[in-house]
Amino acid sequence: MTASRLFSQDPPVPRLGRERVRALLTPRSVVLVGASDRSEWSVMTFGAFAQFGYEGRLHLVNRRGASAHGRSTVTSCTDIGEPVDLAILLVSNEATADALKDAADAGIHAAVLLGSGFAEAGQDGQTAQRQLAELARDLDMAIVGPNGHGFANLVDRAPGWTAFAPDPVLTGPVALLGQSGSVTLTMADFAAKHAIGISHMIGTGNEVNLDLLDFMDCLVEDERVRVLAVFAESIRDPGFFREIAARTAELAKPIVILKVGASELAARLALTHTGALVGNDDVIDRAMAAAGVIRVSSLEELIFTAGLLAHTGPLPEGGLGLAGMSGGINDVVADRAAALGIPMPEFADSTKAHIRAHMAQFATVQNPFDLTGGASMNQDRQIEPLLAIGRDPGVALLAYSGLPFAPSRPGPVSEYYRWIAEGLRGVGRRGVLLLNMVGTIDPRQHALLEAAGVPHTVPGVEYGLQAISHAMWWSGWLREDRPGDLAAGPPQAPPDAVGVWPEARALTFLQEHGLPVVPWRLVADGAQAVAAAEQIGFPVAVKVAADGVIHKSELGGVALGLRTGAEVLDAFERVTRAAHASGAEVRGVVVAAMREGGVELIAGVVRDPQWGPALAVGLGGTQAEALRDRSVRTLPVTEREAGRMLAELRGYPLLCGFRGLAAADLGLVSATLARFGRLASAQGPSLRSMEINPLYVAGDRVEILDAVLVWADAEAPQAG
Amino acid sequence: MTASRLFSQDPPVPRLGRERVRALLTPRSVVLVGASDRSEWSVMTFGAFAQFGYEGRLHLVNRRGASAHGRSTVTSCTDIGEPVDLAILLVSNEATADALKDAADAGIHAAVLLGSGFAEAGQDGQTAQRQLAELARDLDMAIVGPNGHGFANLVDRAPGWTAFAPDPVLTGPVALLGQSGSVTLTMADFAAKHAIGISHMIGTGNEVNLDLLDFMDCLVEDERVRVLAVFAESIRDPGFFREIAARTAELAKPIVILKVGASELAARLALTHTGALVGNDDVIDRAMAAAGVIRVSSLEELIFTAGLLAHTGPLPEGGLGLAGMSGGINDVVADRAAALGIPMPEFADSTKAHIRAHMAQFATVQNPFDLTGGASMNQDRQIEPLLAIGRDPGVALLAYSGLPFAPSRPGPVSEYYRWIAEGLRGVGRRGVLLLNMVGTIDPRQHALLEAAGVPHTVPGVEYGLQAISHAMWWSGWLREDRPGDLAAGPPQAPPDAVGVWPEARALTFLQEHGLPVVPWRLVADGAQAVAAAEQIGFPVAVKVAADGVIHKSELGGVALGLRTGAEVLDAFERVTRAAHASGAEVRGVVVAAMREGGVELIAGVVRDPQWGPALAVGLGGTQAEALRDRSVRTLPVTEREAGRMLAELRGYPLLCGFRGLAAADLGLVSATLARFGRLASAQGPSLRSMEINPLYVAGDRVEILDAVLVWADAEAPQAG
Repeated sequence: MTASRLFSQDPPVPRLGRERVRALLTPRSVVLVGASDRSEWSVMTFGAFAQFGYEGRLHLVNRRGASAHGRSTVTSCTDIGEPVDLAILLVSNEATADALKDAADAGIHAAVLLGSGFAEAGQDGQTAQRQLAELARDLDMAIVGPNGHGFANLVDRAPGWTAFAPDPVLTGPVALLGQSGSVTLTMADFAAKHAIGISHMIGTGNEVNLDLLDFMDCLVEDERVRVLAVFAESIRDPGFFREIAARTAELAKPIVILKVGASELAARLALTHTGALVGNDDVIDRAMAAAGVIRVSSLEELIFTAGLLAHTGPLPEGGLGLAGMSGGINDVVADRAAALGIPMPEFADSTKAHIRAHMAQFATVQNPFDLTGGASMNQDRQIEPLLAIGRDPGVALLAYSGLPFAPSRPGPVSEYYRWIAEGLRGVGRRGVLLLNMVGTIDPRQHALLEAAGVPHTVPGVEYGLQAISHAMWWSGWLREDRPGDLAAGPPQAPPDAVGVWPEARALTFLQEHGLPVVPWRLVADGAQAVAAAEQIGFPVAVKVAADGVIHKSELGGVALGLRTGAEVLDAFERVTRAAHASGAEVRGVVVAAMREGGVELIAGVVRDPQWGPALAVGLGGTQAEALRDRSVRTLPVTEREAGRMLAELRGYPLLCGFRGLAAADLGLVSATLARFGRLASAQGPSLRSMEINPLYVAGDRVEILDAVLVWADAEAPQAG
Repeated sequence: MTASRLFSQDPPVPRLGRERVRALLTPRSVVLVGASDRSEWSVMTFGAFAQFGYEGRLHLVNRRGASAHGRSTVTSCTDIGEPVDLAILLVSNEATADALKDAADAGIHAAVLLGSGFAEAGQDGQTAQRQLAELARDLDMAIVGPNGHGFANLVDRAPGWTAFAPDPVLTGPVALLGQSGSVTLTMADFAAKHAIGISHMIGTGNEVNLDLLDFMDCLVEDERVRVLAVFAESIRDPGFFREIAARTAELAKPIVILKVGASELAARLALTHTGALVGNDDVIDRAMAAAGVIRVSSLEELIFTAGLLAHTGPLPEGGLGLAGMSGGINDVVADRAAALGIPMPEFADSTKAHIRAHMAQFATVQNPFDLTGGASMNQDRQIEPLLAIGRDPGVALLAYSGLPFAPSRPGPVSEYYRWIAEGLRGVGRRGVLLLNMVGTIDPRQHALLEAAGVPHTVPGVEYGLQAISHAMWWSGWLREDRPGDLAAGPPQAPPDAVGVWPEARALTFLQEHGLPVVPWRLVADGAQAVAAAEQIGFPVAVKVAADGVIHKSELGGVALGLRTGAEVLDAFERVTRAAHASGAEVRGVVVAAMREGGVELIAGVVRDPQWGPALAVGLGGTQAEALRDRSVRTLPVTEREAGRMLAELRGYPLLCGFRGLAAADLGLVSATLARFGRLASAQGPSLRSMEINPLYVAGDRVEILDAVLVWADAEAPQAG
C-alpha cells in the first residue's frame, strides 16, 4: 500500500493545466537519462520506443558517455544541442535532483521518473519527495511519477514507459490510468489479451505534481478516447473529479473506476445518529454514482466493462436478450442476471413468431433462448433467432453465448462463427456482443472469431454479465439521472449558525423553509405547558428545552404519551428537574403533538470534509437502528432519487401498507426528503449535520417530530 | 432450461448401484452404433478414442455395413461375435429403441445416448423419454443421457464422449460432472487451460436411469479422484446426496457444486410466519453448507475452487499470508479479502524480523506484504519473505501475486519464477499457490511457470480469493463442524398430532419437552381468569383459546398489558366475544405473564418436502418481520451453530446490550433453539411447522410467550 497517496498531509500542489499534460504526452523529442546496456530498466525503456513505433527523435545520456543500446550517448542534456520535450530519468534517487537540474538547464520542462523510495518509503522517503516537489516547482518541471512506470501514448505512438510493455498491445479507444505502475501494466496486458484496444496507459505513481485527475482531464478531450478505465487508491480532489465526470457525461464517455484502499476520509462528525448510519466508503460510492461514474471491484470487471462500453456506447432503454447453445449455460445466465439486476424481458409476440418459424418444433421460445446443440450445424437456426431477438423492442443489448473453445481439428466451427457474426452484425444499431461461457479465450478461437468478424467478445458469463449490468446502469443514468444545472448558490447559513441549536430553534428553522413540523409550542412554565397541550390536542410529548443538549431522553428530559393536563404538569416538573440535575441550562419545554400508529423514519445530512454533504435515510427506532437499515446519497438529491432511497430500505414494505399499516404517500415523503436535502446543501460548509429523528409517516401525514442542527463553532476552522 | 430435470413428475427410478456405474465407466470393449463418415458426431466420437488413448477393443455398426473412419463395420451388434461392455448410440430418436434392443440382444447392458428431443422437448419428448425408461428397465440397460454428451474416463483412458473433446486435456484428480453436456465440456476445457487435471468428465443429460448422484457415489470411492466438481440443475434425491456428502467428508474429498435454475422445491406450507421467513433457495443453500458441500455461483469459481482444493487438500487453521510485487494489487487483495471474509492475520514478530533482515530498509512489513518492484532482480528478496510468511504460525495458506505476464523478450523472468517456485515449495506442508493478478494465463507464462516448477496457479485476484475463501470455509467445516452421529430415532409424534394445535396444547407440549415457557393458565371463565392473573402476577395478557385459530390477534382475540383484575375481566369478555363473532369455537382463554423491555425473537421450523426440516430464527415484531432479518439452517442444529445463527442476524447487536438493553445470555438462547430444533426433528414428517413467536429474551430470562404447532392432517398424504 502506498501510504503517501492515502494519507498525504501535504498541501495540494497547483495544477499545471491541460495543455502541459497534452504536450508531455506528445513529445517530438525525448532524452533517456541514465541509458546503459547494464540496466534492465534502460533496455526496457529504450525497447518501448521501437515497440510503439515512436517517430520523434530519441537522445541518450550516459554519465560516462559510454555507448548504449548500440547508439552513442552524451554526458549531459545540455550537450544535446537541440530542443527536447521530455526527459526520462533512469538514475538513482541520489542523482535525481542533479539530473532534473541538468534537464531544466537544457530547456526541458517535462520528465518521467522511474525511481522508488520516495513518499511510499516511510519518513525519509516523504521528506525526499517533498524536496523533489519543491525542486520541480522551482524548475517548472512537470513530472510523471516517481514509482509509476510512466506513460505510453499509443494513439500517437509516444512512449515514456519504464518497465515491461505488453506485447502485443492493441491500439483502440480505452484509456488506462492507474496510480500503480504495475497495475496499469496488468490492465494493459489483460486488455490486449482480450482484444480490447487502448489509447494510453499511464501509471501516475507518487504524483509529485501530476495526478490521475490531470491526465483524466486531458484525455477526456481527446476524441480518440471513448472510455476512461481508472485504478485509484486516492482521489485527491473530489471537486475536480466531479468536474471531469460532468464533462465525460456531456461527451457520453464513461469513467470506469476501481477505487481501493482504506478510505482517505477524515474522521467523521458523529455527534448525531446519522453519523453512525453513514459508512465511510458509502459516501465515495454514492458520490461516484451521482456523478455517473461506474465503480467496480476487480481489475477484470474494470477492463471488460470498459471494453464493452467502448464497443456499445450508451445503450437504449431495455433489457438483455440472450441466445445460447447450452440450456445449462442459459440457466447460469438467468440466475446471475437476476442476481445482478439485469432485466431479461419476455420477447414480443412478433419475435417469438419469427423464431418459431425458423426453429425445430420442440424449441421453447423464451429469454434466455436455447438454440439447442442441433442448431450448430444450421445457418438458418443460428442467424434468424439472433436477428429476431436483436430487433425485439424490449431488447437493448443482444448477447450470444456459444462454444467454449475451438476444437483442434478443422470442422464446421469457422462456418458457425461466420453465421454468428452475420447475425450479430445484422441487428443494426443495437449493441451486440458475443458472450463466451467462461473467462478465457483460446488463441485459436480468437483467430476464428476475428476471421469471422464477430463484433465484440466478453469471455465468461460472470464477467460478461457484470459488464452488461454496469453498461445498462450507466446508460440509464445518462438518459434519466444526469443532473441538470444544480449548482448551489452561495451558502446562506443564518447569522446564529453556531454550535448545537436547541430543538425549538431547529423546528422553527425547518418550518420557515417549508418543511412539515408537528404542531408544537415552546413554553416557560407548567401552566403554559398545559394550555399549549390543550390547544394542540392530547396526547402530547413534553421535551426539555436546554442549550447544548442533543440526546434529551438520555438525561430524562422527555415525557411521552401525556393524556391529561395533570400529566403534562407533572411531566413539566419531572423533565426540567432532570435537566437541571444534569447541569443543563433549561429554557423551558417544548410541548408537541404525539403521533402513533405510523412509521418513523430518520433522515440526516452529514458533511464529508472532502466529498461534501450526504443524505442518509433509515427507519427510526432502536431496533431499526441496530439493524443499520439505511440508504445514502451525496447531495443534491432529486425527488425521484429520494424515492429510490426509500425503495432501497429493507423496511420499505412498512411504507407500502404492511400488515394493516396505512400505505405512505411516497411522493410526499420523497418531496420532503429532497427539500430537506436542498435546505441542508444551501447552508454551505458551516452546517455540520442536520437530522430529523423521527420523521413521522402515516398515509399522507408526513411530519417532523424532532430535529437537531449542529453548526461548526464560530472559532473552529471550517471544513472544506 | 431442461424442464424435465426441474419439474419431473415421474416416479424415481430404482438405482442401478455403484458396481454397474463402475463397469460402465471402464468398458474393455465398445461398439459405436451409427458410425458413419458423413456424421460429424460419429467423427468426433470415434476421434475421442484415439485422443484419450483407449486400449480396449472398438467395434463399429453401420446399418448398411458401409465402412467408416477407415474401418470395416457390421450391420448389427449381434454380428460382433464377442462380448461388448458398452454401446454408444449415434442414431436418430426413431431408431433408438431398435438399436437398444439390438445391443441387448448382443448381451450389452450399458449405453451412451447422444440424442436430444426427449424429456427436454415438451410433451411429446417427455412421452418418448418415459417409453425409453421403460424399455431400459425391460432390457436391463444402464443409460448415460440422452442429451448429455456421455462420459470420458481419463484416468482409465476410456471415452464414451459424443461431442468435441477439449485438446489438450490434462489428467488429474478433479472429477467433472454436469447435467448439461455442453457445460461439462466447458468445464473440462477451462480446467485444461488452467493446468487443472481432471479424472473424469461426465454429462448426465436427461438422466433416464443414471443421474448425477449415481456417478458421484461411484467416483468418490476412486482413490484417484480428490475433488468432485459438479454442475447441477436439480438434485433429485436429497437423502442420497447427503449420504454421498457424508462419505466425501469421511474421505476429506470436497464436493464443489454450481446449483442453478428455479428451485425444484414444492410450494411451501406458509401457514405460519416462519414460512414467509424462509426463502426457497435458502434451504438448499443451508442443506449443502450443513453437509460440508461448497456451493458456488459461476463456472470459473467452480473450476478454480476445485483446482485449488485438489492441490491443497484440507488446510490447517489460520489465515491467508500474501506477498506481492505490486502495492496496488495488495490494496485490491486487502479490500477483497475483507469483503470475502478471508482473515489476513498480522505476521508474528519472528516473521517480521526475518523479513526485515532480508529486505530494503524502507519496506513496511505487513500482510499483504509488498515485495516492491526492486525485489524482482534479487533472489534473496524474493525467496526469504515467502519462506518466512509460509512458516508463520497464523498463516494457513501462502499466496504470491506476481507478474501479470511473461514479456516477449528473453530476460530475467525465468530466473524470477524459479526463485518464486523455490520459495513456495520451501514452506513445507502448508498449502501454497501462485496468485496471478488477473484472470488470464499467457501461454508463454504457462511454459515458464511449468519449467520453474511453481506448484499451483490461480489466475486472478478475484477468482483466486473466491477459491481461497471456499477452501478455508470447507477446511474449517471439516475440522470443527462435521456432524457426528446425529441420526434421528424413529419419529415420535404424539397421538393427537393432527391439524392446528391450540396454544394451550402447544405450550404444554413444549414445556413437557424441557423448553422454557412463560407462566400461564388455561381458564374457562372471567373469574378464573382474574384468579390466574393474580397468581401469575400483573401485568398479564389474555388470549382467546379457540380451535383452529392461528392468528388470534387478527380477529381481536388478544388483550395485552392488563394491570388489574377489572381489566382482565373486561378483556375476557372482549376477546371471547370477538372470537365468537368470527365463528370460532371458543374453549376459554389463556392468561399469561407479560414481559417487557427485552428483545423478542421468532423461531420456527418448517419442513421442506425434499430436504426435510429447517430452522429459522429472526427478530420478532412487525418492523423486523418487514426487514426479513433472519437466519436459516437445516436440522439438526448444534448449540454452537444456533449461536452462529444469532450472530448472523443484522439485529444481533440488540442481543448484546445495545443502548442500555440487558445483554442476552447467548448460550441459553442457543441451547433453547437447539433443543427446539431437536424436538421438531423428532416429530418426523407429520409435523408441518412449529413456531415460537415470540421467544422473549432479557439477560438470562429466555421464555416462550406464544407458540403454534401445525400437523399434517390425518387424511392427507404425508410429504416425504
